[in-house]
Amino acid sequence: MISIKDLAALLKAEIIFPSGQENLAVTKDLKALAPIASAAADDVTFLANDDYEKYLTITKAACIIVKRVYPGLTAFQLVHANPYWAFAKAAQIFFPPKKHSPGISSQATIAKSAVIGEGVTVFPHVYIGERAVIGENVVLYPGVYIGDDCRIGDNSILRANVVCEDRVVIGKRALIHAGSVLGADGFGFAPGEGEVAKIPQIGGVRIGDDVEIGGLSTIDRGALEDTEVGNGTKLDSHVHIGHGVKVGNNSMLCAFSGIAGSARLGNWVVTGGHSAVGNRVVLADGVQLGAMSAMTKNADEKGAYLGFPAIPQGEWRRQVARVRKLADFEEKLKDLSVRVRELEK
Amino acid sequence: MISIKDLAALLKAEIIFPSGQENLAVTKDLKALAPIASAAADDVTFLANDDYEKYLTITKAACIIVKRVYPGLTAFQLVHANPYWAFAKAAQIFFPPKKHSPGISSQATIAKSAVIGEGVTVFPHVYIGERAVIGENVVLYPGVYIGDDCRIGDNSILRANVVCEDRVVIGKRALIHAGSVLGADGFGFAPGEGEVAKIPQIGGVRIGDDVEIGGLSTIDRGALEDTEVGNGTKLDSHVHIGHGVKVGNNSMLCAFSGIAGSARLGNWVVTGGHSAVGNRVVLADGVQLGAMSAMTKNADEKGAYLGFPAIPQGEWRRQVARVRKLADFEEKLKDLSVRVRELEK
Amino acid sequence: MISIKDLAALLKAEIIFPSGQENLAVTKDLKALAPIASAAADDVTFLANDDYEKYLTITKAACIIVKRVYPGLTAFQLVHANPYWAFAKAAQIFFPPKKHSPGISSQATIAKSAVIGEGVTVFPHVYIGERAVIGENVVLYPGVYIGDDCRIGDNSILRANVVCEDRVVIGKRALIHAGSVLGADGFGFAPGEGEVAKIPQIGGVRIGDDVEIGGLSTIDRGALEDTEVGNGTKLDSHVHIGHGVKVGNNSMLCAFSGIAGSARLGNWVVTGGHSAVGNRVVLADGVQLGAMSAMTKNADEKGAYLGFPAIPQGEWRRQVARVRKLADFEEKLKDLSVRVRELEK
Repeated sequence: MISIKDLAALLKAEIIFPSGQENLAVTKDLKALAPIASAAADDVTFLANDDYEKYLTITKAACIIVKRVYPGLTAFQLVHANPYWAFAKAAQIFFPPKKHSPGISSQATIAKSAVIGEGVTVFPHVYIGERAVIGENVVLYPGVYIGDDCRIGDNSILRANVVCEDRVVIGKRALIHAGSVLGADGFGFAPGEGEVAKIPQIGGVRIGDDVEIGGLSTIDRGALEDTEVGNGTKLDSHVHIGHGVKVGNNSMLCAFSGIAGSARLGNWVVTGGHSAVGNRVVLADGVQLGAMSAMTKNADEKGAYLGFPAIPQGEWRRQVARVRKLADFEEKLKDLSVRVRELEK
Repeated sequence: MISIKDLAALLKAEIIFPSGQENLAVTKDLKALAPIASAAADDVTFLANDDYEKYLTITKAACIIVKRVYPGLTAFQLVHANPYWAFAKAAQIFFPPKKHSPGISSQATIAKSAVIGEGVTVFPHVYIGERAVIGENVVLYPGVYIGDDCRIGDNSILRANVVCEDRVVIGKRALIHAGSVLGADGFGFAPGEGEVAKIPQIGGVRIGDDVEIGGLSTIDRGALEDTEVGNGTKLDSHVHIGHGVKVGNNSMLCAFSGIAGSARLGNWVVTGGHSAVGNRVVLADGVQLGAMSAMTKNADEKGAYLGFPAIPQGEWRRQVARVRKLADFEEKLKDLSVRVRELEK
Repeated sequence: MISIKDLAALLKAEIIFPSGQENLAVTKDLKALAPIASAAADDVTFLANDDYEKYLTITKAACIIVKRVYPGLTAFQLVHANPYWAFAKAAQIFFPPKKHSPGISSQATIAKSAVIGEGVTVFPHVYIGERAVIGENVVLYPGVYIGDDCRIGDNSILRANVVCEDRVVIGKRALIHAGSVLGADGFGFAPGEGEVAKIPQIGGVRIGDDVEIGGLSTIDRGALEDTEVGNGTKLDSHVHIGHGVKVGNNSMLCAFSGIAGSARLGNWVVTGGHSAVGNRVVLADGVQLGAMSAMTKNADEKGAYLGFPAIPQGEWRRQVARVRKLADFEEKLKDLSVRVRELEK
């Protein structure tokens, strides 16, 4: 599918020839990408985890993406500072996304005022509302609902049963997995006078370019201002983003992350599984909130945080260790108590 | 849209005239509702958070909803004991819900035995089962599934892809956001004899009036008795209510709240994000369970609870503070140990 | 519906006659199954929880499923070592699943290359992709999406709006509740070079026989290898199974369980509500992970675990108790400190 030379150029990786075969052709095509233990003779593989180093000398792969040069290998080496990233880029070549045959199903319902771009694929049972603008090459799978005045950017793919309520804006090359809901009302209510009064949610939702959203996630519309997700940010399944939240670029939110109203997440932020960010809480660029952890105050410093309430990771680990030693403390305290009583006699 | 006088009457708020202008007309129309910092000259705004008091003298708003009288302001003041609630009610006037044009899509599938009320809107790709009763002015968005023998109360709105399994009953003025599932089988199984035997779930689901349910929430049907959600209760996105649970009136359940089977929640209960209520656990009226917390025993007293297992909030806070001081304890214990050894010599 | 004799045979339970009436007919039909407190004269009931023993002498039921013989009762007793399981099996008889009238809706969209078995029910607004194979008696509710090359086993039921992406394989007698998504891309990304690069997810999803999946759950497709769920395993609502995970047979995963990529769960594993299993973590057969708990390391021993990070249940309980006693520790430490100072004088 791609030659060693072309792959190296694409990854900006250095080519190291097989030991003692510096004249071997680099124009040979690599046929597939496979794990190091199971790769075949025309395959490319990668080493991103040192635990797999033992396979370096026994793999059949023609070419291995590595972080540093390993002397004496019989395979080509492509040296890259970030082999996991290089593997991802290679995999994108060997496993390209499924092609669609453009066309609008007669079983879809499309408002007359909607604008449908070139090359769009609309499956059956899709609904597109008034004045919606669907960019070029967009793919809308069965059961997708696009409300009034939505805008879906070029080359975006919305998988089955995705819902975009009115005025949701999605950038280019987005991939929204099945069943996710964008633009439902935020959870805004004012209890009083014997009722829980609804606060109308009139803001919108704005999703950047190159965003991926897992299955069954929700991004609520803002109360007054928009909810925003920046370019290149990736959401796992079952992620919840509350009203008025702003998430920066290239952040990663793992499954069951819950971001409460008006929180602000910077760029390159990571939130672990089942984590929570409190109302109006601000996470600086590069903050990593661990799984099962809740950030209740602003985190101004880049770094890893854990626990509830979340604290810097090192501190949390020491805390856990100390709690585990409490039996020991208890013992020592008893012992001291006895000895002090003895001394007091 | 509404005059100062009419708004005051509606909110039962006291009107305070601009300083030195006690003859100014209160019949002037307010044009919009806006945040205090950005409101224009014909707008109404509100002060629900003291942090924004600094804007009182510089806002351009014609009228401000306040908790107490501020002397010397150039705007009208509408004094109300609960300005946040008053703001919600005002917002409901300025941002009324979207109007629908009643009508039944020919692309919907409706059982002949179903009863459809006056003024109902049925979008394409809706399915309505046998003997279902759809109240007046109900709106069913695309992809909604209504099982056999369901009853949907007047003026309720079910957004795209909402699923009501057989025999689900929903009251009046409900708003169910996209993708939520009501009446799926509860998680009832009996392990034994080499299998995990399913316990048929034959109860129903009963939802009261004025209930709002966020996107992608689930309310399971009961095993033998119904699962119930009381009037005026609001559920966020990704909330799970197990089989046989009874939730009272005017309660608020935040995102990822999980209420296990047969639990009982009173009125005005609040459950935080990622919180859990255990099997058969009873929460009294006014209990507030914090985020990331799990109530494992009955909470008979109104009040706030936190932690896992959840304890009264004050106690939990002191516990967290003490755990953070453990390094200090350790230090002191070592010091004492050395000194006691010294004394023993 | 079934005689006492036949029910006993089916459950392999021993029949104990009503006290002093050893000649009573065991061929009488039981009419219904009901809770012990409300059962009528022709009903069967069960005692699975000792708290209900007080009802044994006052229930009107004709027949009670019990764990051990209770002397002097006026009802038949069916003695079984696992009355809860026996109740489940009895309930399956009295509350059989809804019957469907086979047929393919003309409002469904079915690829010509798809293979549809005998007795299949396809509701309107269903989509079935190329080369999909739908087994005998399968029921596909409205809004179900079946991607290309999927295989759905005989007698399986997919409720409304369930999504199976390409190449998902489901065994026989599966019950998938509404809105669940199988085969969405796993959350695989490699940050680097100023982007978060997507790792194509080309593995599949394989679900065994007799699996039940609650509403709005997600089972992601593998990155390179398949994600697998074994025979007889049951998932609650809002469960997330990450890419490449293998779950064994007869396991039970409660609501909001999140199983991270490549984790391995054995047979008869239970994960509580809001629990998490970390990347690549292995849980042995019979491991029970408590609610709100996260297993971060392999659990090689059968047993119950709790906390974050999860530890054996007994240890966790003692830890919680010790943390609650910290105020007491603090007090004692202060007291000792004063006394040591006194001694030092």
